[in-house]
Amino acid sequence: MTRVRTAIVGPTGYTGFHLIDLLLRHPQAELTYLASHRDELPDIREEFPQLLGRLTDEQAVCRPIDPDTIADVADVVFLALPHRAAMSYVPRLLDAGLRVIDLSADYRLADADLYERVYEHPHEDLANLADAVYGLTELYRDQLPGAMLVANPGCYPTAAALGIAPLLARSVVQREGIVINAASGVTGAGRKPSLALMFAEQNDAFGAYGKIGGHRHQSEIEQTLGRVAGQAMSLLFVPHLLPVDRGILETIYLTPTQQDVTEEELFEAFEDAYADEPFVRVRENLPNIKHVVGTNFVDVTVRLTGPAEQRRVVVFAAEDNVIKGAAGQAIQNMNVVFELDETAGLM
Amino acid sequence: MTRVRTAIVGPTGYTGFHLIDLLLRHPQAELTYLASHRDELPDIREEFPQLLGRLTDEQAVCRPIDPDTIADVADVVFLALPHRAAMSYVPRLLDAGLRVIDLSADYRLADADLYERVYEHPHEDLANLADAVYGLTELYRDQLPGAMLVANPGCYPTAAALGIAPLLARSVVQREGIVINAASGVTGAGRKPSLALMFAEQNDAFGAYGKIGGHRHQSEIEQTLGRVAGQAMSLLFVPHLLPVDRGILETIYLTPTQQDVTEEELFEAFEDAYADEPFVRVRENLPNIKHVVGTNFVDVTVRLTGPAEQRRVVVFAAEDNVIKGAAGQAIQNMNVVFELDETAGLM
Amino acid sequence: MTRVRTAIVGPTGYTGFHLIDLLLRHPQAELTYLASHRDELPDIREEFPQLLGRLTDEQAVCRPIDPDTIADVADVVFLALPHRAAMSYVPRLLDAGLRVIDLSADYRLADADLYERVYEHPHEDLANLADAVYGLTELYRDQLPGAMLVANPGCYPTAAALGIAPLLARSVVQREGIVINAASGVTGAGRKPSLALMFAEQNDAFGAYGKIGGHRHQSEIEQTLGRVAGQAMSLLFVPHLLPVDRGILETIYLTPTQQDVTEEELFEAFEDAYADEPFVRVRENLPNIKHVVGTNFVDVTVRLTGPAEQRRVVVFAAEDNVIKGAAGQAIQNMNVVFELDETAGLM
Amino acid sequence: MTRVRTAIVGPTGYTGFHLIDLLLRHPQAELTYLASHRDELPDIREEFPQLLGRLTDEQAVCRPIDPDTIADVADVVFLALPHRAAMSYVPRLLDAGLRVIDLSADYRLADADLYERVYEHPHEDLANLADAVYGLTELYRDQLPGAMLVANPGCYPTAAALGIAPLLARSVVQREGIVINAASGVTGAGRKPSLALMFAEQNDAFGAYGKIGGHRHQSEIEQTLGRVAGQAMSLLFVPHLLPVDRGILETIYLTPTQQDVTEEELFEAFEDAYADEPFVRVRENLPNIKHVVGTNFVDVTVRLTGPAEQRRVVVFAAEDNVIKGAAGQAIQNMNVVFELDETAGLM
Repeated sequence: MTRVRTAIVGPTGYTGFHLIDLLLRHPQAELTYLASHRDELPDIREEFPQLLGRLTDEQAVCRPIDPDTIADVADVVFLALPHRAAMSYVPRLLDAGLRVIDLSADYRLADADLYERVYEHPHEDLANLADAVYGLTELYRDQLPGAMLVANPGCYPTAAALGIAPLLARSVVQREGIVINAASGVTGAGRKPSLALMFAEQNDAFGAYGKIGGHRHQSEIEQTLGRVAGQAMSLLFVPHLLPVDRGILETIYLTPTQQDVTEEELFEAFEDAYADEPFVRVRENLPNIKHVVGTNFVDVTVRLTGPAEQRRVVVFAAEDNVIKGAAGQAIQNMNVVFELDETAGLM
Repeated sequence: MTRVRTAIVGPTGYTGFHLIDLLLRHPQAELTYLASHRDELPDIREEFPQLLGRLTDEQAVCRPIDPDTIADVADVVFLALPHRAAMSYVPRLLDAGLRVIDLSADYRLADADLYERVYEHPHEDLANLADAVYGLTELYRDQLPGAMLVANPGCYPTAAALGIAPLLARSVVQREGIVINAASGVTGAGRKPSLALMFAEQNDAFGAYGKIGGHRHQSEIEQTLGRVAGQAMSLLFVPHLLPVDRGILETIYLTPTQQDVTEEELFEAFEDAYADEPFVRVRENLPNIKHVVGTNFVDVTVRLTGPAEQRRVVVFAAEDNVIKGAAGQAIQNMNVVFELDETAGLM
Repeated sequence: MTRVRTAIVGPTGYTGFHLIDLLLRHPQAELTYLASHRDELPDIREEFPQLLGRLTDEQAVCRPIDPDTIADVADVVFLALPHRAAMSYVPRLLDAGLRVIDLSADYRLADADLYERVYEHPHEDLANLADAVYGLTELYRDQLPGAMLVANPGCYPTAAALGIAPLLARSVVQREGIVINAASGVTGAGRKPSLALMFAEQNDAFGAYGKIGGHRHQSEIEQTLGRVAGQAMSLLFVPHLLPVDRGILETIYLTPTQQDVTEEELFEAFEDAYADEPFVRVRENLPNIKHVVGTNFVDVTVRLTGPAEQRRVVVFAAEDNVIKGAAGQAIQNMNVVFELDETAGLM
Repeated sequence: MTRVRTAIVGPTGYTGFHLIDLLLRHPQAELTYLASHRDELPDIREEFPQLLGRLTDEQAVCRPIDPDTIADVADVVFLALPHRAAMSYVPRLLDAGLRVIDLSADYRLADADLYERVYEHPHEDLANLADAVYGLTELYRDQLPGAMLVANPGCYPTAAALGIAPLLARSVVQREGIVINAASGVTGAGRKPSLALMFAEQNDAFGAYGKIGGHRHQSEIEQTLGRVAGQAMSLLFVPHLLPVDRGILETIYLTPTQQDVTEEELFEAFEDAYADEPFVRVRENLPNIKHVVGTNFVDVTVRLTGPAEQRRVVVFAAEDNVIKGAAGQAIQNMNVVFELDETAGLM
């Protein structure tokens, strides 16, 4: 049975923690190296006491980000650094012969100009950007086997793309006027202390955040859906912060292309698209983050509503932002890259 | 100084509790009678130990719903019963000479046929339905002084109407295609035990609920906005349940009538409409339920976004569903009916 | 590799859900039968949409509690019924040749008179009561291989016994005057709808519950510790309800037998007792339920404090009430009964 | 009607916010000055958007901590600074003729040597320390009228002292061996961002914190109870952090002096002590933080339990840590200092 030796660079955030947790459960993966760019190299069990008793001392103590040393003990690196930091390491990791699954935003937008506009900094690794595979597994599975660099999708874009693509692909909804109303648990905002993320500020709280229409994931969603539609897309994405640790729910408003479309046809689009997908559950009932947290599933359903002249399609898509929206999908991608069973370690 | 003697019929729900709490703080109100239709008449302090030490024994013990006895000791009744139950008591309460502020849905929809379609039961008190004043105080303040029967608005419709009316009134947004994405705390779902509302089911949970496009409050919102627009309205309202006790946030998507409208003009519409309103706060920043819970405020802001050809107006409106969305607005209405200072007991 | 065929009787509570979840991840277990005593046999995926896509239709639909039919397809039954109901099925399940791991309280107290006093009902299966093994795995591992009937310990008693036994066994603490201050998540209170367990009642809430000194688990703890001490024990157990789904923390106050005992000696007692235990983590830092939820671990630490003449030993023990406190320990017991690796499916 | 002009120094923490909120509701208080020691003077409405529409621009903008300017517009200052900072301002505020209600720990411990041991810094204002009145209103009401400097008690000590004093005063419990198991909402830990206080770390979490037996409030409790007992006291205080914003519950374990004491006698001690207290509710049922949050009440009950030879007294005391445990009690003290109705603005 194939075994994959894995390393994590940047394990001290929530994504890092879940990568470790999932890799320790994975029947064919071995976790051999945790690498941190902190000056004082942490023992990951002090960051996350959840991991006590699950890692050996050797596994638990972070070491420097040294590509050659990592390449001696690992086949693949999960890169869980902030954007900009990620692209400063990718070339060296690839040069050392490692495969890289990057969980930052640095290789998600294929257009370097767009990257610069959205992330307000020029892209610094154009060579590898061109070769990166966008790892939305369900849509780009064919490009993954053997890939050297995988850009793991953003949390919001994963649910959004999976919730909209089947309808766009069949042209049953219009490309224009799409609105994505999204709500996420606070782990999506990272682990850096800030007043806004304190318990006493977020508990019993709910609100939208950021510049409306200006979230960086909006461009990533437009890129994916534009590819599906075969044309540039423009939509509106409005994120909110929920008083929960984990979970994303997206409520997506679309306009049917034909006023006489039926709800059955909409369901059919999803059922056909996802019949063989192990991690997309097309549901009759409305999804709830409670039903997906802790899993790699995306739950999707669709409704047709509104009066005759103003029919609306409403899609609901739920996922765990740190699993299917980050660490779980990264491992799903690893499975496909190394041609393991796609569900290994994730069920 | 005018004093108003008040009674509450149906005090054992969350709305009842907040009515009691607010009336006890009100400088000009006296709470003289709690009436329950339960066979075993409860001591309200056993239902809500929060009230211990705040009510006398005589105040605390519920008595039967006897209109004449109530009329002996009260000027106004707050009716906090479920719909259908409410309209079975209103005629007798009015006949006894009491003013009635009804917090159920029974007198909110002026059209009895619409009521029957929406609530699946014929209206049984057409005479009083015709005379009821819809107590969205900010819009119908003029009709309130001296009113005998006030239909206190629903929680969602309050925020929705206040968030949309100023834009519709100026015709800066289109009547068509309005989408209201709403999220509410669980007190909005009542106090009757059910599996779905158990802590272990709602904690860390988030999802839409009900029949999408079929929530009863949608018709109430359409009625109010139709009056503002001078034309029948049809919109889409999608409610979600938040893992919090209290608070509603509505994220409202609209289309501008003119592509060259500016965000300043949108703000101006709100600022003009609400300049003198004590309970509507037009904010620059995005509202959060955390900032309104426990108050009678509605916080509103607006954004203009989207690419040139697809401009969108997004309104955010937040309120406490049991205060401005129920008990607080009921007291605001009482203040106006009895010509007290509108903010008495609410600041 | 040994495979164990498993059935669950009473899968619609929180314990049942976690049994299913854990058995589906177990590399050597097969889930072959869900049995319900409801008249209308539920599809477990409608009770717990979390399970969608993880069970086949055949697995998901509950069937009657028919011992012979179950015995055709299963080697062991997990019995997740309320007490009294459990002992009405155990004889027939055993007669059918099934092994039984009972998660109710019916076979935990070896003394039938004590059972009758505590559970206010005579014990009805004395024959099997005598043969049941009390499945606190760490203390009674030797009696488990091949056992026909295992009484799975209560949630509170598991943490309490593991937190106190090593100190009692070494006689470093007195048998008298032990106080266990416990706090549990609400899943411990079951899944039956009640006003007290509604979200809007439990959110932001915290308090003790029940008759102080009268919780049924107190007797179970006294039984276990009495065996360790070799003498009848009497202690005080005070439970509180936390606004969380899962997790128990017990803060245990004890008196040292020797005033000159050191904290090192106390730690040594734990480290010696649990050096080879895969699921007990003796920690330096204070445990938190956040670090154990979702795992089969019990986290324990100890402190010596107080002025010279009034030394106190304080033990902190944390576990997930539905895993180590119920479903996880049941599977740990199954592993030992069937002589699998004790940690199979639990790491 | 007497009016009191009030200022707050250090309004940007949770205590400051609640002082503002309560003073704005107070019928006889005027809020005239907010003073901050920040370099950039904040508008308090940006710190706490809850306050929008409730403060004038002039009230809302913080000004420097200038005692003479404050003395021009205020009669009393609420000092909501950290300890050490507080005692650096008190002499100048008193010299300017202001009364001071200090919410820090600086004037709570009458013994300067004890202060130095507990707070690890010498006391720097011995002159005023000697004159400060410890503002546990229920116990020291007589010393408050006209007091120049009030040391507002700590949050934990308030509930602890009120929960134990009546029993000690009657000598029905022993002075030795008292254990206070306490749990607090996170606002008690302040508003300074830290990893430990982030939402994603505290949500669904529960654990003890700090050095067990070493919390600074332990000494404050011992001082108060020592005065009641007429002898030095030594007890054990163990605090835990709850996943809620507000609320403290203390579960207090004591030993009766007479084995034949009855529960009725214990209740009698509380009822006699608190018969005329507006803010202490002696309850039959177990207190819950949900019933006191948002109020200035302390809810107390008592139980007698345990076998004949090991009787235990268990007291439960609940309060809102930011109201009765801080801002509310400060205003209660102000009311008594200025000889207003003690409950003014607090009911």
